[in-house]
Amino acid sequence: MKTLMQSAIIAVTGVALSGGVVSAQNEADRGQIEAVIESYATALNASDTDKVMRLYRTDGVFMPQHSPSSIGAEAVRKAYDRVFKAIKLDVDFKIEEIVQIAPNWAFVRTNSAGFVTINATGKKAPEANQELFIFQKSDNNMWKIARYIFSTTNPPRQ
Amino acid sequence: MKTLMQSAIIAVTGVALSGGVVSAQNEADRGQIEAVIESYATALNASDTDKVMRLYRTDGVFMPQHSPSSIGAEAVRKAYDRVFKAIKLDVDFKIEEIVQIAPNWAFVRTNSAGFVTINATGKKAPEANQELFIFQKSDNNMWKIARYIFSTTNPPRQ
Repeated sequence: MKTLMQSAIIAVTGVALSGGVVSAQNEADRGQIEAVIESYATALNASDTDKVMRLYRTDGVFMPQHSPSSIGAEAVRKAYDRVFKAIKLDVDFKIEEIVQIAPNWAFVRTNSAGFVTINATGKKAPEANQELFIFQKSDNNMWKIARYIFSTTNPPRQ
Repeated sequence: MKTLMQSAIIAVTGVALSGGVVSAQNEADRGQIEAVIESYATALNASDTDKVMRLYRTDGVFMPQHSPSSIGAEAVRKAYDRVFKAIKLDVDFKIEEIVQIAPNWAFVRTNSAGFVTINATGKKAPEANQELFIFQKSDNNMWKIARYIFSTTNPPRQ
């Protein structure tokens, strides 16, 4: 839990759509997906597990660095609770690409950067990560996080 | 015999396919994707960049922990060269799920475990990671790695 994640203001710039099918509907989908990423960043920076959980599918998988994959809502919730107990994040997300693969599926690649504070010590350090989200549109037409993994882009701490 | 065969097929396909479209073609696709994962593991353990590169799309993205994302074949090649210069891997991959999202797209979630040897020191240590691959079927009908990210599942090294 030493190195971790991300958050707030979304720089919606330079979005590359490689291989995705582009249409008016897809533009609406893209907007909804961007909104989820923005909400996710806000929830992370607020250490708000409930808000995070509303963005995930119930069968979602969270793959945080330094922890085994958390599969399904109960495990995902526990993992975020652990994260937020350990650290406080203050990070911004930059969307690098949104690729809609199918009417109900898309993936999003992002980078995030900012600061992490270790709650136990109050020590604050720079934080930078890369992320890959797989989104699935749910029955109620809401795009939700189906799979999510990140890793630090910083060199190993000495 | 028929029943036995059907049972065998059902057993083999008992992998969680959440939201994916299941068909005979998809079973063929699944087999090809599994073969790529197997080849990838072999290439990693052999520190063979050329072999790795044959498994990636030319527009593929490699997102290794502790490095910025490498975008496109030239950057991906350099990244693997750096990895293989620094470490020697001896790991096995376990496929946790293969989800085919569209005729030409799938994602694969895996875990890998084994050992890593630091080339500079000869020091060997346990290694365990989680991985998320996004696969795209190329024009020549070959499934290739389009996006790939991993992170350690071990706690931070002290």
